Amino acid sequence: MNIGLSRDLKKRIGKENVKTDAADLLAYSSDATHHYIKGRPDAVVLPLTVSHVAEIVGYASKRGIPVIPRGAGSGLAGGSTSSRGGILLDMKRMNRVIDINKGNFTAVAETGVVLAHFHRLVEKERLFYPPDPQSMAVCTLGGNVSTRAGGPRGVKYGTTGNYILGLEVVLPDGSIIQTGGSCVKQSVGYDITHLMTGSEGTLGVITKVITRLLPLPEAKKTIIVKCRTTEQAAFAVSEIISNGIVPSMLEYLSLGAVALMNTLLSPPLVTDGEAYLFIELDGSPLQIEEESLRVKAVCEALSVMEIRIVDDKKEAASYWKARSSLYPLLMSFLKKVIVEDVTVPRNRIPEFVKAVEKIAASTGVAIGVSGHAGDGNMHPSILMGEISDEMEKKAHRAIEEIVACGLELGGSISGEHGIGIQKREFVMREMGARQVSLFKAIKEAFDPKGIMNPGKIWLDGGKNR
Amino acid sequence: MNIGLSRDLKKRIGKENVKTDAADLLAYSSDATHHYIKGRPDAVVLPLTVSHVAEIVGYASKRGIPVIPRGAGSGLAGGSTSSRGGILLDMKRMNRVIDINKGNFTAVAETGVVLAHFHRLVEKERLFYPPDPQSMAVCTLGGNVSTRAGGPRGVKYGTTGNYILGLEVVLPDGSIIQTGGSCVKQSVGYDITHLMTGSEGTLGVITKVITRLLPLPEAKKTIIVKCRTTEQAAFAVSEIISNGIVPSMLEYLSLGAVALMNTLLSPPLVTDGEAYLFIELDGSPLQIEEESLRVKAVCEALSVMEIRIVDDKKEAASYWKARSSLYPLLMSFLKKVIVEDVTVPRNRIPEFVKAVEKIAASTGVAIGVSGHAGDGNMHPSILMGEISDEMEKKAHRAIEEIVACGLELGGSISGEHGIGIQKREFVMREMGARQVSLFKAIKEAFDPKGIMNPGKIWLDGGKNR
Repeated sequence: MNIGLSRDLKKRIGKENVKTDAADLLAYSSDATHHYIKGRPDAVVLPLTVSHVAEIVGYASKRGIPVIPRGAGSGLAGGSTSSRGGILLDMKRMNRVIDINKGNFTAVAETGVVLAHFHRLVEKERLFYPPDPQSMAVCTLGGNVSTRAGGPRGVKYGTTGNYILGLEVVLPDGSIIQTGGSCVKQSVGYDITHLMTGSEGTLGVITKVITRLLPLPEAKKTIIVKCRTTEQAAFAVSEIISNGIVPSMLEYLSLGAVALMNTLLSPPLVTDGEAYLFIELDGSPLQIEEESLRVKAVCEALSVMEIRIVDDKKEAASYWKARSSLYPLLMSFLKKVIVEDVTVPRNRIPEFVKAVEKIAASTGVAIGVSGHAGDGNMHPSILMGEISDEMEKKAHRAIEEIVACGLELGGSISGEHGIGIQKREFVMREMGARQVSLFKAIKEAFDPKGIMNPGKIWLDGGKNR
Repeated sequence: MNIGLSRDLKKRIGKENVKTDAADLLAYSSDATHHYIKGRPDAVVLPLTVSHVAEIVGYASKRGIPVIPRGAGSGLAGGSTSSRGGILLDMKRMNRVIDINKGNFTAVAETGVVLAHFHRLVEKERLFYPPDPQSMAVCTLGGNVSTRAGGPRGVKYGTTGNYILGLEVVLPDGSIIQTGGSCVKQSVGYDITHLMTGSEGTLGVITKVITRLLPLPEAKKTIIVKCRTTEQAAFAVSEIISNGIVPSMLEYLSLGAVALMNTLLSPPLVTDGEAYLFIELDGSPLQIEEESLRVKAVCEALSVMEIRIVDDKKEAASYWKARSSLYPLLMSFLKKVIVEDVTVPRNRIPEFVKAVEKIAASTGVAIGVSGHAGDGNMHPSILMGEISDEMEKKAHRAIEEIVACGLELGGSISGEHGIGIQKREFVMREMGARQVSLFKAIKEAFDPKGIMNPGKIWLDGGKNR
């Protein structure tokens, strides 16, 4: 333990907001994956105010100490872990919702507010904040902004970036700026708001978020579709979208995923299909009535095994609850799960699913394919019942092939999880050397000392080592 | 005329694509305002391919020659004019629509495609590209991206930035990058796509645009509301929005604006109200039927003078055509019109409108207030029947006060026109010195030689003089 550092931090923001016990540092050494552990922070601080953050970052800046911002630590790419000591900023205590403005359809909240709590507050006002990463019960608004997080509702509503109007940011030199604002339209110079969005803590610390809101849709309806084959399901997704129907959620689930989710469902779904679609429509009651019939017609024309429109609200909610519990369920009975996050243009999903099946067979790795199929964001998951060097090698080969396949289909290596540590090796492949050199030049412009979340997003060079 | 430059350019991209006649250079010295003329370009080139652009920018980079990208020159802030010679890139000939992908809801187009033409092509496929700057008959997709352009549909659909998934960009050193991609979700490093969006040609030349599309709404309905007072109209806007109704357009027009538009309307609107709302709802027929009744109820409760639901499609189209012709109409009978672009949170519109009326009275300047009220983006226009030093001084005072008022209400100095030359003096006031220093650091990172569209966005310092 670094006694000088501990003392300095406690002096600055109070000893109750600083943790340096070995057990605490260990607890903060990984994110939700538990497998991107590169080191431990030297100290964990839990700031209560933006002044605390500015104070700590200013202190770190003067001494060249790494600073790692962290929301709930529910990320899946190692983005909020320490790669070489430093001060980890746990932002969870800055969790006030400051304003919900019904006349302007906007909200202002501190970075550490838990997403599900934020959802509840705005929905109480008949307003709607669409982004819904499946970790919403724990993840924070600021963490969502940092990773440009998405979720099932991306198909209709886009991701976090589409709802962020402005930010309060502590820059790497400890100064505080306010980007964007409370207007849905703004064209005043460079868009620092969206440059920060998705920057994974490498350009500064997000302390406050101004979000755009929508009116809460009046009604919603869930439809469960059982398909004979994975291909049939993938094709159904493509057909629904091509017919101009945009559900609020359109999830693709493998037989294995549904079997797991069945542990939470009563009655369980009959697992005689190879793949399932969970669909939600939202809008006015009349509109979703009409759309559900159109979804039904599209699926019937493809001769799927079963289409069930779920009228009971509790039953519908139980399916979505089970869906959002999929990752913890997987983690509870496997040694290691690597969740891929490749996104492809939506009409390429059938090809992608087929390719992933082939990759599983050829590499000898179990891969469960689920994902937000409506927007092309798939989560093939490498399922490891045991961990060995050989398994890791196979898994890595499978991931490489999945990534290559996604890029070949015109897709992207990450839809909503971000790069963190996990995908650093593939960034160059998608973005090209010249664009990565721009990333580095931007990093240098914001953070010349390279203290912010080092070792994330790209592998080599610059000050981000 | 610079003979060496002319010869060099012609050698590189063919003499038919280079203009250096004095008359041509004069024609390119201003945008649609005709009053932000600071100088003339030394040459105008009309590239046909991205290689042409890369060739020209590479050439300019080696010699430190300014490069000014330009779409249709329909901007209102002087952003596409030359402030000190240089090469003006007229992008209009790069105007192919390369792909409209119905299965993925995306399109790929070259930068110079005219927006109205793009609208027609995607709508033929029952798809929808919402951004609708009122110059859409001439303005280009690339110009829209450069200024983060909006339009009336911003209230429901946001602005250009919300629909741009990726770009092809020629960087200031002549290299070519591809940002973003064809997926609606992407979280791979810094968002260069949205950093370029709204950067007004100061970071590179946009040569290709990948847009997100929506399904084309099945139906739309126009409602004309006549209000006793400007305040009543402003309040009606606020009430409609607060009731959770989000029209596809919600335009606020002064009596003067409607009187002008009447020259294009047959029969004309009766001009006995002080302000008018032009409203369009879109969606399924049932949905807009229901919503139009709700709009009617809100307006009736406020005792407006008249609410007319326009059932005839041709008549409805004539109102929107007249609306989009407002600026040319103003220009045809006044010596000078300065269109302000201040945006305020939507629930602050009544206060803003009242304040602008006071500013007009106290400065002795005629100000017509119209705008995209639904999203808070107002266009108070300084109307000058004569031009004199005294008038210019008064106008500037009025603008200063309008800007100050907008910022005080939590608004922004530009909603959709951008900064260009017009608003440079106010950027610091909205963004603060630290954020403007970040703008400059980003500029330096992209364009160390400072060749791209110098003199725009901010006033002082750096390489952007």
